[in-house]
Amino acid sequence: MPDNQPALEQIALLRRLRAIRQFRPDPVPDQAVVAILAVARWSGSASNRQPWELIVIRNSETLHALANAGGTAPHLAGAPLGIVLVMAGEEGAATREAFDEGRLSERIMLAADAFGVGSCIGWFSGGSEKAAKRILGVPDERVLRTAISLGYADEQARAGMPRRPQPRKPLAAIVSYERYGQR
Amino acid sequence: MPDNQPALEQIALLRRLRAIRQFRPDPVPDQAVVAILAVARWSGSASNRQPWELIVIRNSETLHALANAGGTAPHLAGAPLGIVLVMAGEEGAATREAFDEGRLSERIMLAADAFGVGSCIGWFSGGSEKAAKRILGVPDERVLRTAISLGYADEQARAGMPRRPQPRKPLAAIVSYERYGQR
Repeated sequence: MPDNQPALEQIALLRRLRAIRQFRPDPVPDQAVVAILAVARWSGSASNRQPWELIVIRNSETLHALANAGGTAPHLAGAPLGIVLVMAGEEGAATREAFDEGRLSERIMLAADAFGVGSCIGWFSGGSEKAAKRILGVPDERVLRTAISLGYADEQARAGMPRRPQPRKPLAAIVSYERYGQR
Repeated sequence: MPDNQPALEQIALLRRLRAIRQFRPDPVPDQAVVAILAVARWSGSASNRQPWELIVIRNSETLHALANAGGTAPHLAGAPLGIVLVMAGEEGAATREAFDEGRLSERIMLAADAFGVGSCIGWFSGGSEKAAKRILGVPDERVLRTAISLGYADEQARAGMPRRPQPRKPLAAIVSYERYGQR
């Protein structure tokens, strides 16, 4: 069915997205940043609440400070660009906001990938949230959790790293039909 | 820059995704379902935990029962296909799982969109989770929250509905540079 060719190409794009942690120093062009932000802006959220703000960071000192804040985003130190998500922190909405934050993050990664820009998600978990808030001037009542490192993949550095296999569970292990456990 | 044409086309795809709640009765072809599941399978998750299972539902009785379970997924009743996400329910990982669930949901919607299939997210919130678990035979210790309705948009029905405007906040209101609040 030749009609499905564009669909299959898009599917291939969705499938190929992988986390990239080693970056070349080249900056991400403004055109790509603007397009990524436009996609982020149009993300869907529960009841269209859009419970998010974004901080775009290119300053190398800030990126290093965030990388060293103690979370799971050391890759920010080697990235030419970071996008940090600030969530509204509405009372009683922690789960809903985390879900919307995941949707937003995935879109940012896919939009970056469209420009050949690799990315990786890190979290300010535990005590590092406070440190990161101080670095960025984020008010206490907001939730600061996700930092996305962005940049062009440094294929040479990646080739030199031990390959971390990232296999996925087979479909047969995760998909049921009509009822849980019915394969 | 002609080089960026494919990137801009992909960006357009990401931007155009909207929730669809009114469906034609035509079934979603198996080829599309398989492709959507393949994309779902390759979704990224924290530490590659893949804390999810999926239930693919075409049975109209089951879809109606889920729609009536009391959550925010009444649109399942009119959909030819539902994909329900079952999360692992690991202790102390509620936020992380909700975030990964959001990433997975976004991918499923985008993969469906590649085939011209519309979709909408609903939640089994509050008491409806128990009812939905009973309907689908999902064990108590799992988290059952997200149902995604899928099908071809019924443009006629949509045209007859009052348009719910889904504006988005302007970029200037949600994006800071280098430091929170710095426009």
